[in-house]
Amino acid sequence: MMKVSELGEFGLIELLAKMVDAPQNEQLRIGIGDDASAWYGDTPLQLATVDSLIQDVHFSLGVTTWQELGWKALAVNLSDIAAMGGQPRYALVSLALPGETEVADVTDLYRGMIELAREFNVLIVGGDTCRSPVVVITVTVFGDAGDDRLLTRSAAGVGDKIAVTGCLGGAAAGLEMLTGRLRFDSETTADLKKAFLRPQPRVGEGQLLVRQGVRAAIDISDGLVADLAQVSKASRVSARVDIDRLPVHPAVRGSFGDRATGLALSGGEDYELLFTASAGIIDAVKEAASCPVTVIGEIIAGKQGEVNLVDARGNRYQSPRSGWEHFKT
Amino acid sequence: MMKVSELGEFGLIELLAKMVDAPQNEQLRIGIGDDASAWYGDTPLQLATVDSLIQDVHFSLGVTTWQELGWKALAVNLSDIAAMGGQPRYALVSLALPGETEVADVTDLYRGMIELAREFNVLIVGGDTCRSPVVVITVTVFGDAGDDRLLTRSAAGVGDKIAVTGCLGGAAAGLEMLTGRLRFDSETTADLKKAFLRPQPRVGEGQLLVRQGVRAAIDISDGLVADLAQVSKASRVSARVDIDRLPVHPAVRGSFGDRATGLALSGGEDYELLFTASAGIIDAVKEAASCPVTVIGEIIAGKQGEVNLVDARGNRYQSPRSGWEHFKT
Repeated sequence: MMKVSELGEFGLIELLAKMVDAPQNEQLRIGIGDDASAWYGDTPLQLATVDSLIQDVHFSLGVTTWQELGWKALAVNLSDIAAMGGQPRYALVSLALPGETEVADVTDLYRGMIELAREFNVLIVGGDTCRSPVVVITVTVFGDAGDDRLLTRSAAGVGDKIAVTGCLGGAAAGLEMLTGRLRFDSETTADLKKAFLRPQPRVGEGQLLVRQGVRAAIDISDGLVADLAQVSKASRVSARVDIDRLPVHPAVRGSFGDRATGLALSGGEDYELLFTASAGIIDAVKEAASCPVTVIGEIIAGKQGEVNLVDARGNRYQSPRSGWEHFKT
Repeated sequence: MMKVSELGEFGLIELLAKMVDAPQNEQLRIGIGDDASAWYGDTPLQLATVDSLIQDVHFSLGVTTWQELGWKALAVNLSDIAAMGGQPRYALVSLALPGETEVADVTDLYRGMIELAREFNVLIVGGDTCRSPVVVITVTVFGDAGDDRLLTRSAAGVGDKIAVTGCLGGAAAGLEMLTGRLRFDSETTADLKKAFLRPQPRVGEGQLLVRQGVRAAIDISDGLVADLAQVSKASRVSARVDIDRLPVHPAVRGSFGDRATGLALSGGEDYELLFTASAGIIDAVKEAASCPVTVIGEIIAGKQGEVNLVDARGNRYQSPRSGWEHFKT
């Protein structure tokens, strides 16, 4: 008898994916194993994704307000739709709450969700609520894609450049600041707090990537290295990351010294898009995008799923810790 | 400051529904407040529903195997699609599990889900897994409807007869038998266990109702009285139930004596369909249906949301307890 903690999250997903793999149909485009599931309703292509946030696992009410929690619970799902290049449309919210939860806290939660939903023209159209010993927020988001083209984890090819939107490490630094009660100047404090608590899903950027001809992408939720490893594995390639080219969040570089690179590599929860494409396509994306786009490495031949970190002198760099994975202890 | 426990589940839903009510669009058919949400993808009409099952709230691993749990977690969602008259198509599964959960238990859970999914041609196409202090299983099901016609809670009209599929009280009696370790003959034991642990979602029956011209329905999850009250409230009418016409589960009538009627009225979790229509339409449904269909009362003018219970002599009957509602203590 093997425990979930021994198998690990990815092993478990793989196992379950195999179990449900058998029955397919012509309309199903993407099942288990990508950021969202996709099928043809008719046209346009329908997308769906779900994520649960669990108290004292994904969030602590000591450092997060209910409103911020609502924002984030939806944001992580919109980010999954963004990572497919889709347009989010509708959300279902399943709320499990202790009976002693304040109603005002729940309405605050919804306020945060609705604020973000409005920003992206998403409608919350249903869900359920029930009693629970801990707070569990499960959001399902449905979206669609304009046509057959989607961003998947499995489309990276040898020779592709690897790029990311925005900057990295801010969310993890924000979490450390809040839980460790670290004191910085007010601008740094505000920037890091925002990076951790109010991530901006890159919905427009995902669609831009599709239009510019990008085919491989993932959102950075578990950390750059961990998520790039997912792309490398699904695409059966290796990856090289030039760590000196990482767009480390300026507030992190300024406040976390030597640890800044590690946070950018492994911190997670930045919800930026990581994508791969030819240098020419990435140049076109850079020109059209309203956010920074940085080339950080290259897809190379080699061991599937491997991510090699090298510094400016070409030396191997050892990542201080790997990304977040559930169940592993 | 009001607590969720003071407001109650329905109050909370109403409150949240109001908050998200504002932004609508032309494609949205049904938002918060019915068994499932519905919108036009293009054609056909897309349906989506979500339900969470939480350890020691909705189920106890002392009386339920993981496989039965998997069946039930999907069944309750298929039942919601059935109650709209739709066809379930895809499911997303969000699993929150303690790290010490056995992998074999999780695969058993999926086995139960897949068994039911195959029976109804549903594909499990995604989800997520994460760590949690208690087991939480959240299933989202997407479906579609052949055309514009759906079964809703708000379409009951004065003069409609009220009917139910199958028989009632079996699930609640099964739960009592299992938790109270009651001993019955082997046939009764098997029947009650099945009623509680392996509910059959009435998917084909829901579609039959639509074809025969029925417009108002709900599935019986919280108990006949509680769910009929939902229909009465949404339709702004009253309801009369003739308690001597209730199709009480034969194993319940035989084993629970005086309490059988109460279990049929308020037990919940039977996942039968309750619907209203003209006598003529119900006769046609009866003829076409492959399961029993029983007229149990009538939609009447009166206080919105009220459910009046009367016996064969026309006397008011006092229900021993009301249906299941989360948070209320």
